[in-house]
Amino acid sequence: MTNPPVTPLPDTVRFPSDLKSIDDKLLPQLAAELRAEMIDAVSRTGGHLGAGLGVVELTIAIHKVFDTPHDRLIFDVGHQCYPHKILTGRRDRIRTLRQQDGLSGFTKRGESEYDDFGAGHSSTSISAGLGMAVASQLQGTPRHVVSVIGDGAMSAGMAYEALNNAGALDARLIVILNDNDMSIAPPTGAMSAYLARMASGRTYMGFREVGKKLTAYLGKNIDRAITRAVEHARGYVTGGTMFEELGFYHIGPIDGHNLEHLLPVLRNVRDNGEGPVLIHVVTQKGKGYAPAEAASDKYHGVSKFDVVTGTQAKAKPNAPSYTAVFGEALVQEGGLDETIVAISAAMPGGTGVDKFAKAFPARTFDVGIAEQHAVTFAAGMATEGMKPFCALYSTFLQRGYDQVVHDVAIQKLPVRFPIDRAGFVGADGATHAGSFDTAYLACLPGFVVMAAADEAELKHMVRTAVAYDYGPISFRYPRGEGVGVEMPERGRILEIGKGRIVREGSKVALLSFGTRLAECLLAAEDLDAAGLSTTVADARFAKPLDHELIRQLARHHEVLITIEEGSVGGFGSHVLQFLSTEGLLDGGLRVRAMVMPDMFMDHAAPEAMYASAGLDRKGIIDTVFAALKSKGQTGAQVTLLKP
Amino acid sequence: MTNPPVTPLPDTVRFPSDLKSIDDKLLPQLAAELRAEMIDAVSRTGGHLGAGLGVVELTIAIHKVFDTPHDRLIFDVGHQCYPHKILTGRRDRIRTLRQQDGLSGFTKRGESEYDDFGAGHSSTSISAGLGMAVASQLQGTPRHVVSVIGDGAMSAGMAYEALNNAGALDARLIVILNDNDMSIAPPTGAMSAYLARMASGRTYMGFREVGKKLTAYLGKNIDRAITRAVEHARGYVTGGTMFEELGFYHIGPIDGHNLEHLLPVLRNVRDNGEGPVLIHVVTQKGKGYAPAEAASDKYHGVSKFDVVTGTQAKAKPNAPSYTAVFGEALVQEGGLDETIVAISAAMPGGTGVDKFAKAFPARTFDVGIAEQHAVTFAAGMATEGMKPFCALYSTFLQRGYDQVVHDVAIQKLPVRFPIDRAGFVGADGATHAGSFDTAYLACLPGFVVMAAADEAELKHMVRTAVAYDYGPISFRYPRGEGVGVEMPERGRILEIGKGRIVREGSKVALLSFGTRLAECLLAAEDLDAAGLSTTVADARFAKPLDHELIRQLARHHEVLITIEEGSVGGFGSHVLQFLSTEGLLDGGLRVRAMVMPDMFMDHAAPEAMYASAGLDRKGIIDTVFAALKSKGQTGAQVTLLKP
Repeated sequence: MTNPPVTPLPDTVRFPSDLKSIDDKLLPQLAAELRAEMIDAVSRTGGHLGAGLGVVELTIAIHKVFDTPHDRLIFDVGHQCYPHKILTGRRDRIRTLRQQDGLSGFTKRGESEYDDFGAGHSSTSISAGLGMAVASQLQGTPRHVVSVIGDGAMSAGMAYEALNNAGALDARLIVILNDNDMSIAPPTGAMSAYLARMASGRTYMGFREVGKKLTAYLGKNIDRAITRAVEHARGYVTGGTMFEELGFYHIGPIDGHNLEHLLPVLRNVRDNGEGPVLIHVVTQKGKGYAPAEAASDKYHGVSKFDVVTGTQAKAKPNAPSYTAVFGEALVQEGGLDETIVAISAAMPGGTGVDKFAKAFPARTFDVGIAEQHAVTFAAGMATEGMKPFCALYSTFLQRGYDQVVHDVAIQKLPVRFPIDRAGFVGADGATHAGSFDTAYLACLPGFVVMAAADEAELKHMVRTAVAYDYGPISFRYPRGEGVGVEMPERGRILEIGKGRIVREGSKVALLSFGTRLAECLLAAEDLDAAGLSTTVADARFAKPLDHELIRQLARHHEVLITIEEGSVGGFGSHVLQFLSTEGLLDGGLRVRAMVMPDMFMDHAAPEAMYASAGLDRKGIIDTVFAALKSKGQTGAQVTLLKP
Repeated sequence: MTNPPVTPLPDTVRFPSDLKSIDDKLLPQLAAELRAEMIDAVSRTGGHLGAGLGVVELTIAIHKVFDTPHDRLIFDVGHQCYPHKILTGRRDRIRTLRQQDGLSGFTKRGESEYDDFGAGHSSTSISAGLGMAVASQLQGTPRHVVSVIGDGAMSAGMAYEALNNAGALDARLIVILNDNDMSIAPPTGAMSAYLARMASGRTYMGFREVGKKLTAYLGKNIDRAITRAVEHARGYVTGGTMFEELGFYHIGPIDGHNLEHLLPVLRNVRDNGEGPVLIHVVTQKGKGYAPAEAASDKYHGVSKFDVVTGTQAKAKPNAPSYTAVFGEALVQEGGLDETIVAISAAMPGGTGVDKFAKAFPARTFDVGIAEQHAVTFAAGMATEGMKPFCALYSTFLQRGYDQVVHDVAIQKLPVRFPIDRAGFVGADGATHAGSFDTAYLACLPGFVVMAAADEAELKHMVRTAVAYDYGPISFRYPRGEGVGVEMPERGRILEIGKGRIVREGSKVALLSFGTRLAECLLAAEDLDAAGLSTTVADARFAKPLDHELIRQLARHHEVLITIEEGSVGGFGSHVLQFLSTEGLLDGGLRVRAMVMPDMFMDHAAPEAMYASAGLDRKGIIDTVFAALKSKGQTGAQVTLLKP
C-alpha cells in the first residue's frame, strides 16, 4: 500500500487478516483510532459504549495473535463487541447499530462468520467455548477457542458450572477474564472482592514475570499430564488461586491496555501449553473517553450524545417510565410495611430497585448476576414472613425458572415478582425480549399472574402484591414510558382474579392483558364508527382468570378477541382453555387470541415491532374483520368496512 | 423415665427436645438404632437409603446441639432426610414413605414444622438458608440457620451463587458440606476433585485442632470486622481454601461419623462467631449397612429389599423402560454417526446415557449437576457440527430454561433434547413431576417439540432427532415401562410436523400427544360400542402442529378432544390457538383440551395419579359425554350411554 502513515489505520485494517501485516508498534495508533470511530458511531446511534472502550487493545491483540475465524472467539454478554465488529468487516455499518435492519448491539451468528456465538445474556461464554473446544478435539481439527468474560459475569452460577466442568477436562480452552471491576452496576459478591484483592494486592505481572511463569509450566509441556497427576496426588489444597483449584492454569493479572504485555502473553499461550487456561486481564471501562471514565456507570448504555461534552440527548419523556413508577411505588409501600424487602440481580438501576436501596439500604439485596439464587433467597425470606420483591426483567427471570417452580410455586410461598421489560424491548432485540413469562408462569398451579395496562395499574399491582400474602404473585410491565394517565396518590388493592370493563359495547369484545389496552380503545373507536359496537375489557389477571367476566363477554358478543404482548401459551391460551372447557365455544362464538408472532424479532423501534407483529390498532381491527368474515360464520351478514 | 437402658432409644426420643436430656455417650447407640429403623422401613417401602445412612450421626448432632425448630435446618435435595423425619415426630409414619397419603420422600414444609424448606431438586439450601438468616437479622430474632449440602450439589451454579452472595454479607449462616464423594452417580468436575484433595490430603481435624482453629478466629470475635478489613486490605490472595476466598470461615474436614468430633465443633460454632461459616464433614454414603456400602451407587434409590441379603425385589418388567429404549437407540445411532455426542447432568444412569458412555466414552459428557452449562455446552458443540443429545429429566430442564431460549432457540442450533420423566412420576411427587415442558418449549419459535406415544415411537424420534439438523428438537417420554409394542430393528425418520391417524371414526376425534394414546384407544372402543364412532390420532408433534390433520379432525367430527400428560399452555393450547385462528371453531365444533389438573399432585402410584387427574380411559369418556351434553349444542340429539 502507498498510504502515508497518517492515513487512519482502520481504512486498511478491515478484517483481522489485514492485522497480520501491521507492525505491533502501530497497534496503539489503531487502538486510538478505533476508539474515536466507536465514540463517533455510538454518539449517533446510542448503545453500549463503556464496555467496548475498555477492550479495544484486548480485541486488537486477540485478532492479531489468533487466526480468527478459524480460531473461535466468544464475547460474553456482547456489550463489548463494537470494536470487534469494526475490525471484522463491519466498519461501514457500525453507524446502523441497534437500528432496524442494522447491526445488532450484541454478537450474532447470522451477522458475521466472526461472531462465533450470539450473546446478550451474561455468563454463557465459557460453556459455549468449552463445547467448541471439545468439538475441535473430537474432530481432530486443532483450533484455539477464546472466551472473553467480564468479572461481573463471574457472579453467575453458570460460569462456575462451566469452569468446574472445563477444569476437569483436558480440552484447550482459553478464558480471558476481563476484570474492570464493573458489571452494569458495580459488581457485588465475594468473587468480585476476591478479584479486586488479586488485582490490587499485586502489581501487574509484566512480560518478564509472565514469561517466567509461562516457562515454568510450559517447559514441562510434554509430561504435563504427569505433572498434573503428581500435583493432585500430593493433595495440595491451598497455595493456588481459585481458578487453579478449579483446574485452570492462571496467568495474571496483567494490564489489559498495554499491548506490550498483552501480545507476548497471548502468543505464548497460543503456541504452548494445553488444557484450560485463564488469563486475568485488568481493564478500565470507558477507557480513553473522559466523560465515560468519569461516569459512575462508565457509560454503560447511552443515548445519542455530544462527543465533545459527553452530554446525552435523552428525549424528554411524556410520562414516567414503568420502571420509575414501580420503584417509587415500592418505596412508598416500603415506608408503610417494614417487612418489604427488594432483591435485584445486578440491575438495581434497570429495575428501579435503586430507589428502594436509597430509602431502605438494609432491606435491599443486590445478589449479583444470580437469578437462580435471587429467587430462592427470596423464597427463604418469605418462609420467615418477609415480603420479598424479586425484581427481574422478563427475559432474565428465565434463568430462575426452576427456582420459581420448585422453591416458590410448589411451596406456595408469597414471593412477589415484578417483571420489567415484558414484551418487545426495541433496540435490545431478540435476546432481551420479554415474550414467554406469561406462558411459563401461568401454567404453574397457585400462581397469581398480573399485567399492568398502564402506570396507574402498575401502582395498584405493587400494592396488591404487598397485600397478597398467600402464594406467589407476579406483575408484568413493559420497557419505556407509561401512557400518561393520572396517577393515584397510592395504589389500591385489586381484587384477585377480577378484571374490569373499560368500555361497553354489544357485538365485539376486546379483552386485553397488559398495555395493549390503549390500542384496544383506539381500535374500538374505529370499530364503533364502522357500526360494530365494541366492548373493551382489561383482564388484569391471566391467573386466576376472571371467569365471570369472560362468560359475560362470550355470551353477549359475536366476536371475542384476546390480546397480549406475549407468546402463545399465555393469557390467550388460558382463556381458550376456559372457554372450551365451559362449552362457551360450542355455540359458534368467534374467538381469536392475538399473541406475539412465532418468531424471534430483531431489534427495531417499538412501534415498528408492534406493527410488524400485528399487535396494534390496525392489527386488532383486521383480526375482528377476519373473524367476522370467517367461513364458519352462521350468523347474519356483516357489513364490512375498510379498517 | 424408668426404662432400662436396653429399651430402644427411638422409643423415648420422639422429638428433638427429647434429645436434650440424653447423654452424649448414648448417641452412638441411638445412631445404630436409627439406622436399623431406617433400613427396616426402606426395605418395605423402597426409597432413598444410602444418603440417609450417611448422615445419621450428623442429623443427631444437629438436633442435639441446635434448638430446632426455632433454629432452622435445611437439607439440600432431601434424599438424606429419613433420619431427620424419624427424629422429628414422624417415626410412626416412616413406613408410609413415598406411599399415597404417606410421608414424602423429601423434606416438605406442609408435613412438619421441622421441615423448614422443601426440597427435591439440588443445591437450593444455601440460598434458602441465607434468606432465612437475613430475615432473622432484619427481624432482630436471633436464630441459627443450618444448611446441609452434599458435595455433588456443589457442582451446581446455584450453590456458588449463594456462596458468593453469603460471603459478601455478614449474616450468620452455617453451611455443612456433607462430603461423601458421591452425588447420585460419582460426582464429576473440578470442585469434586478439589474436595477430594482436601479430604484425602489432610488427616481429619480432631477436636484439638478444630478447637485451636476455632479459638484463633473466635478469640477475635469482637473486632472481627476489623480483622476482616485488614485481611482484605493486605490483599491476601492465596493461602486460604476456596471457601475462605469466598468469605466463609472454613472448618474441617472432620469425620462425620464421629460424634465426639461433631458435637464440640457444632457447639463451638453455635456459641461463638459470626458471619458465614462452612463446616466440611466427610461421611460415607450407605454407612452401617454392608450391602449399601458395597453397592456402586451406595444404595441411592432402592426398591423393596431383603434386609439380610440386601437383594432388591425389582418387579419383572413387562416391557423395556423408556429410559432403556432411549439409551439403546442412541447407542445404535451413535455407532452409525460419529458426530453424535451425549450430555448428562449427573444422571447418566437415570437418563440411559450410561449405555452411550459405555459404548462411546469419548463422546459422552457428564457435566455434574449443571443443567445451565449442559445446555450451552451442547449449543457450543452444535455450532461445530456435532449432534449433541442433552438428556435431562423434564423437571431438571427447567434449570436450563434460559439457556434453551437464549443459546439454543434464538440461534436455531440443532441441540437435541431427550426429555425423560415427562408427566407424572409416581413416588417422587410434585418436585419431580414433568408437567411444564411442553408449555415452556412449544412457545419458543423454531422449536420442534415431539412426544412419544410408545417405545417404538421413541425409537423413531431418536432417529428423527439425529436426522433433523436445522434447529432445536425435543422429544418427551414418561417414567417407567413402555406399553409392550413390537420394536423396530432401527427407528425410522418421521416427517416433521406430521401426526398419524391410528383409528378412524366419524363423530368423535381423540387427538393424543404422547403416551395417553393407549388410553385413547381403550376409550375409543367403549365410545364405539356406545354408538359414537371415534377417530384416534397421535399428534407426535406439538410444534410444528400437523395443520392438515387437525383441520381434517375438526371438519369431520362433532367433538375433538386433545389429551396430553402436561399442563395448560402446551399441546392443547397450541391446538386451540390454531383452531381459533383458522376459524375452525366458528361453526360450533365441540373442542376440549384435556391437561394435567392445575395443582401440584403429591406422590402416589401412577395409575392413581392418572385417575385423579382424569387422564385415563374413564376421564376421556366422561369428557366426550360432557362435550356432547353441552348447552351450546346445536346438532341432533345424542343418545347418552353410561360410560
